[in-house]
Amino acid sequence: MNSQDEIIYLDHAATTPVDPAVVEAMLPYFTEKWGNPSSIYSLGRDAGVALNAAREQVAGILGCSPSEVYFTSCGTESDNMAIRGVSLARRRQKGTRHIITSAIEHHAVLHTCESLAKYGDFDVTYVPVDQYGMVDPEAVRAAIRDDTAMISIMYANNEIGTIEPIREIAAIARERHIPFHTDAVQAGGSLPIKVDELGVDLLSLSAHKFYGPKGVGVLYMKRGVPFLPVQTGGGQERGKRAGTENVPYIVGLAKALTLAYEKAEAENARLAALRDRLIRDILASIPECQLTGHPTRRLPNSASFVFRYVEGESILLSLDMEGICASSGSACTSGSLDPSHVLLGIGLTHEVAHGSLRLTLGRSTTEESIDRVLAILPDIIKRLRAMSPLAPRALSQS
Amino acid sequence: MNSQDEIIYLDHAATTPVDPAVVEAMLPYFTEKWGNPSSIYSLGRDAGVALNAAREQVAGILGCSPSEVYFTSCGTESDNMAIRGVSLARRRQKGTRHIITSAIEHHAVLHTCESLAKYGDFDVTYVPVDQYGMVDPEAVRAAIRDDTAMISIMYANNEIGTIEPIREIAAIARERHIPFHTDAVQAGGSLPIKVDELGVDLLSLSAHKFYGPKGVGVLYMKRGVPFLPVQTGGGQERGKRAGTENVPYIVGLAKALTLAYEKAEAENARLAALRDRLIRDILASIPECQLTGHPTRRLPNSASFVFRYVEGESILLSLDMEGICASSGSACTSGSLDPSHVLLGIGLTHEVAHGSLRLTLGRSTTEESIDRVLAILPDIIKRLRAMSPLAPRALSQS
Repeated sequence: MNSQDEIIYLDHAATTPVDPAVVEAMLPYFTEKWGNPSSIYSLGRDAGVALNAAREQVAGILGCSPSEVYFTSCGTESDNMAIRGVSLARRRQKGTRHIITSAIEHHAVLHTCESLAKYGDFDVTYVPVDQYGMVDPEAVRAAIRDDTAMISIMYANNEIGTIEPIREIAAIARERHIPFHTDAVQAGGSLPIKVDELGVDLLSLSAHKFYGPKGVGVLYMKRGVPFLPVQTGGGQERGKRAGTENVPYIVGLAKALTLAYEKAEAENARLAALRDRLIRDILASIPECQLTGHPTRRLPNSASFVFRYVEGESILLSLDMEGICASSGSACTSGSLDPSHVLLGIGLTHEVAHGSLRLTLGRSTTEESIDRVLAILPDIIKRLRAMSPLAPRALSQS
Repeated sequence: MNSQDEIIYLDHAATTPVDPAVVEAMLPYFTEKWGNPSSIYSLGRDAGVALNAAREQVAGILGCSPSEVYFTSCGTESDNMAIRGVSLARRRQKGTRHIITSAIEHHAVLHTCESLAKYGDFDVTYVPVDQYGMVDPEAVRAAIRDDTAMISIMYANNEIGTIEPIREIAAIARERHIPFHTDAVQAGGSLPIKVDELGVDLLSLSAHKFYGPKGVGVLYMKRGVPFLPVQTGGGQERGKRAGTENVPYIVGLAKALTLAYEKAEAENARLAALRDRLIRDILASIPECQLTGHPTRRLPNSASFVFRYVEGESILLSLDMEGICASSGSACTSGSLDPSHVLLGIGLTHEVAHGSLRLTLGRSTTEESIDRVLAILPDIIKRLRAMSPLAPRALSQS
């Protein structure tokens, strides 16, 4: 590895470690209060009490009724449940078969829309974004048709950190009585999340993005939104999501979300300052480099770039050898050789999009972490460019 | 509570406590090796290595290739994924729109078939069962049509413990080139599970039935079975089940399944002996009582009964006051006032089906647990019957 012993983890958008306080909150539900919450005896009721308490805690943070909180197995399931469940119910109810989303959604949204188009006879409009990855609310308005079943636009982009104007889009959807879903998986734990203030009808969260475990998520669904169950079976989650409840993780999710929002204001300010220094110094010290995503309307922990004449994967491997964990975009698609649809969506060429790097900060990130990246990255880029037949000679000698 | 301090848990079919060795196996993946297995740096690769090892371990137990093992969020998801994914793919490929299942499946199978019938234009044949809950393989053969898309018959029934002749049914399905799925959620951890010996194409498991955590399952799917993804998004699980992998629980599932099959032979024999005594003595000491399910072809840990002139719920509450945890059937449907579809399926009347009691044994069950139930249950039944206007006077005085 590197000259230092400690790993510098700058991929908090991919996943986060589970907070030890969250692990502690979960542990009793494995071996002590391990009953099935549907059982009527005391052991089951104890688990049911924990489940209810977690639901109320999450509802408190979202500012909704506990009966509007549905626990799922991950953010991807929440997105699938929202889009499949609402689109199919609306089509059945109203005959509507049109979905509006953006070109830069997470694959959990995009592939679900594509699947509904391919196998479910839906029509999908992919609203484009500007060079910063911003969706124009007026473009959403213009895309609405009489047969629009639902709209799904993400709260913040996972690759480039851009925060979308979802309040404005929600207002447009409400005017037209069209259910509006937001994938808040990347925003959850840091951005404001009161569903009434956002004006959304459905909102997806995933615990492992805010120091909870991987394998549990939330779907907020406003009372009255048309919905057909996607996962059928027992009567759990008021008949809308079958399956024995994962009590330990649900307790963990509630704890993690609570801790995240207790710390959010101070932590957002701390991370934004580190992020700003990271962005400023990288842009200043590395030629032919560009920030991706919005310069100011972006997640407080997110810095993302493209470097010309280098491959993102090569940067990652070089950083890994120095003990720095980073990503070229979404972890869900790593291994794929296609350039990111998000980077193409903001208008980058295939060639430029290949040289992407995402650094996402978190609780373990310190001034020293940033110093270390700034000390190493310019040389890595220079060395990689020196090996590239495409890079102008001046870049590897600068 | 009762005169004793310790709870006697006789509802292992509803759920089991997590084995402390399983908790220990999971713990490092929360706070030490917590990377996203899709990430390419060392922290992610460590998680990926654990994921692969767990997959190989499960594949070893099932006797299949690791590439045929799909991790899901629960048994219900495995059943949904199998039935929705294969039915929809087969219809697309061959135009087939007929599903065969039994009348006594778990709701994860039944409600999924019903949902496909109601919203997906499928036709479902519910093969009846005999008085013991046995499916007749010849009835399955007779139900096959030219447009049969798939067959799903459970390995062992969760309410009455009957073990179905799935090898015979699988052979019939294979002859006709129809994919065969078995819901092995209740059988997993105790009955033989080599997929080649069973001859099944798809098989569902849920960890919390064999001392693993609630919230993780397996779907075995034979290579080449037509399948359309049900949960879409990132490329996890070879593109067939999107969502960041729940590494700790997957590691835990593999560990729990391994431990269960290491112990299965001895534990099955021990539990079957206790079960037989329980059944024999209850039938001998309580009048107007009947064993439900097959007398011999039943899960080694399962004893289930109906008592005339009493409500199952009242028995459960009385047992709970004595510190005994039991069930009237499936935990997934408790709270419902409808009698069990399984008990109606074996030909019981509504009235008789209401008086059901399921006692399912497990690792914590001892001779003393059984003694205690046998000492208490006859008096409980007698007392409840004394309060029932329907019970013949002789029964409450006997």
